[in-house]
Order: sequence, then structure tokens, then C-alpha cells
Amino acid sequence: MGVNIDDVKRLKSLTGVGLTDAKKALEEAGGDFDKALEAMRKKGLTKADKRGEREARAGVIGTYNHDSRIGVLVEVNCETDFVARNEIFTGLVKDISMHVAASAPLYVSLDDVPATEMKKVEKEFAEKAKSDGKPKEMIDKIVDGMVKKHFSERCLMDQPYIRNPDQTVGDYVKENIAKLGENIVVRRITRMQLGEV
Amino acid sequence: MGVNIDDVKRLKSLTGVGLTDAKKALEEAGGDFDKALEAMRKKGLTKADKRGEREARAGVIGTYNHDSRIGVLVEVNCETDFVARNEIFTGLVKDISMHVAASAPLYVSLDDVPATEMKKVEKEFAEKAKSDGKPKEMIDKIVDGMVKKHFSERCLMDQPYIRNPDQTVGDYVKENIAKLGENIVVRRITRMQLGEV
Repeated sequence: MGVNIDDVKRLKSLTGVGLTDAKKALEEAGGDFDKALEAMRKKGLTKADKRGEREARAGVIGTYNHDSRIGVLVEVNCETDFVARNEIFTGLVKDISMHVAASAPLYVSLDDVPATEMKKVEKEFAEKAKSDGKPKEMIDKIVDGMVKKHFSERCLMDQPYIRNPDQTVGDYVKENIAKLGENIVVRRITRMQLGEV
Repeated sequence: MGVNIDDVKRLKSLTGVGLTDAKKALEEAGGDFDKALEAMRKKGLTKADKRGEREARAGVIGTYNHDSRIGVLVEVNCETDFVARNEIFTGLVKDISMHVAASAPLYVSLDDVPATEMKKVEKEFAEKAKSDGKPKEMIDKIVDGMVKKHFSERCLMDQPYIRNPDQTVGDYVKENIAKLGENIVVRRITRMQLGEV
């Protein structure tokens, strides 16, 4: 059974095994890349580091349209085209798109909040805490809590997931990382609402 | 036949006629708002100014997804919900979405190009023209032409429409304004491609 050398290299780089093991896995799978990858995963043969650190470069652009009045785009990355085509993954992308339509997050996570915006909000809360007469030694702590709350309400990963508010969207994504055995990254979101300024 | 007072007011503000005329038109249409509006348009009863100046506030958010690799959102405004639900209008929104997916414009029109970006490109072309040894007295004109070309290739309204490259997207929209008898404005576009930086 002939084996494609590019597939061998790709399997090697995706799984972290040596060329020989990658070639063997492909041969056993009759040259079918996805089958070989799945078999290696099942056998626990992949040597890649912690999932959270593996590079997520494949994936899907999801779109969602609510009643022609709200539109959403999301890019969700995973590591392989194999998972990008998986029903669990495409279902996750759809769930995230619908969540974004409903809950209107402004950022994916805290890391995406621009520093200037963060400073501006901090300043506003600090002024409020002062004018509310909060004790000086408490102000930093109070402001910290208010800023955290303010942005976690606006960050997708920290929002309560609309279909199960007991968990955050971040937790829901993690659940799917565990199911799929690949790192999954919500890379960016856009939401457009009719008539908004 | 009872007539909804809110409908009367809405019809008045949309068409620019007086309350009495709006009420009469609604009564003649059996209370059906869309029918009344259509009848008034047919009779030329609307007093609004030139179409291009009338406010476009209703409309549609269109989404388009190509192969899960490219996603597009567009907001297209018209003047009334009546037209927003019209097949010609929704077809136009779909056409524009597909065009944006294929031709990847960065801006709707020249007016949307940030001044800093415009200056940057002008400077680059001016330097190029100088280093190409173009005659000094020609440089302004040459740069002007290059800048115009550069941005018209990146502005939706100036791009050749993919399904009929003999006309620009702007011309195609104008054609539909004439057909629908309402001002139509492509307000904003977003395009997301898998893996782009």
C-alpha cells in the first residue's frame, strides 16, 4: 500500500511522533490520513504537549443570522482539518455563534480588552468609589472588583453560557476540548445589529 | 374599518403627508400599513425629498458563509420595513454579501477610508514616483491617479460587480434604488477569512 510522504510529514508534525511511526500508522490505515490520525489518538500515541499549548490553526468560520436583524461571525480554531469537520466541533461553533448573537459580548477574553479601554474604566470606577465616600484603603480593592465584573460581563469566555447558565462559555469550550482531544481556540468574534450606531 | 393611530403616525412620518391624508390612505387600504404605503407611492403622494437624501433606517443584516472558510456580514439600509422584506431587496443584500466574500473589499466607499491610511498611501506613492524619476510637475497628478486606483480597488462601491463586471457595485445598487423607489445604503461590511492575521 503506497503512502503519501507529505501525509507522513504532516502526521509526524501533528502528533509529535517520529517519521517511522507516522509512516507505520498511515500504512496500517491504508493510506487514509484521518483514519491514521484517529487510530493514533485512540492509542494515545500522540506526544504533543499539554493541549492548551498546541497550535490551533485549522478550524471554521461560523455565521449566524437572527431574523435578518443580528448577524454574527466567529472564527474557531482547532489543530486539524479532521476535527474541523467533526460534528461536535461544528456544533460547538454554532452554539458559540448563537450565544454571541444573544449575549453580545464585546471581546473574546480579558486579553483582548485594549489597555486604553481598561484604564478608562478603572478611572471611572475609582472616581465613583471616591465620590461614594469609600474608605481610601479599600478603594483599590473595590475598583479591582468592579473592573473585573465590568469586563467579565463583556467577555465571551466569562459569560454564562446561554444554554446552560451554570457554566461559562469558557468552561463549555473546555468540555469540548476534552471530548475532541484537540486544543480549541475562539479566535475572534464580530456581531452586527441592525441600526446600531 | 378601524385604523391604528400608530400606523397613521408612521405613515405620516415616512411619506411626509399630513395626518388626514395618512389616515385616509390607511382607511382605503383597510388598515393594512404596507398596502397603504404602496398605494401612496404609486400615486406619487409621498412628499419626501430626493431619494438620495431620505433617511435609510430600516433594512437587513445579511450573512454569507463560503465553505466554512469565509464569512461575511453586511448591513444594508432602506427606508421602510416594507421594502426590507421585499424579495428584490433581500436578493440585493445576498448579492452584495457574495460579492464581499469573493472580492474582499476593505471599505464600503472612499468616505470610509481613514485619513491616516489615505495619507500613508499618498506618501508611499509620492516616494515611488520620485524614485522612478517622474518629472516634478507631474508627480501630484500621478500620485493622485495611483491613490484613486489603489482605493477604488478596495472600496465595495467602486469594485466591478462580480456577476456583471461591466458595472460597479455602486451602479448595481443604484439600479435597485430605481427599481424599489427607496433610498438604499450599504452601511457597513465585515469579512472574516479562516487563518488570516
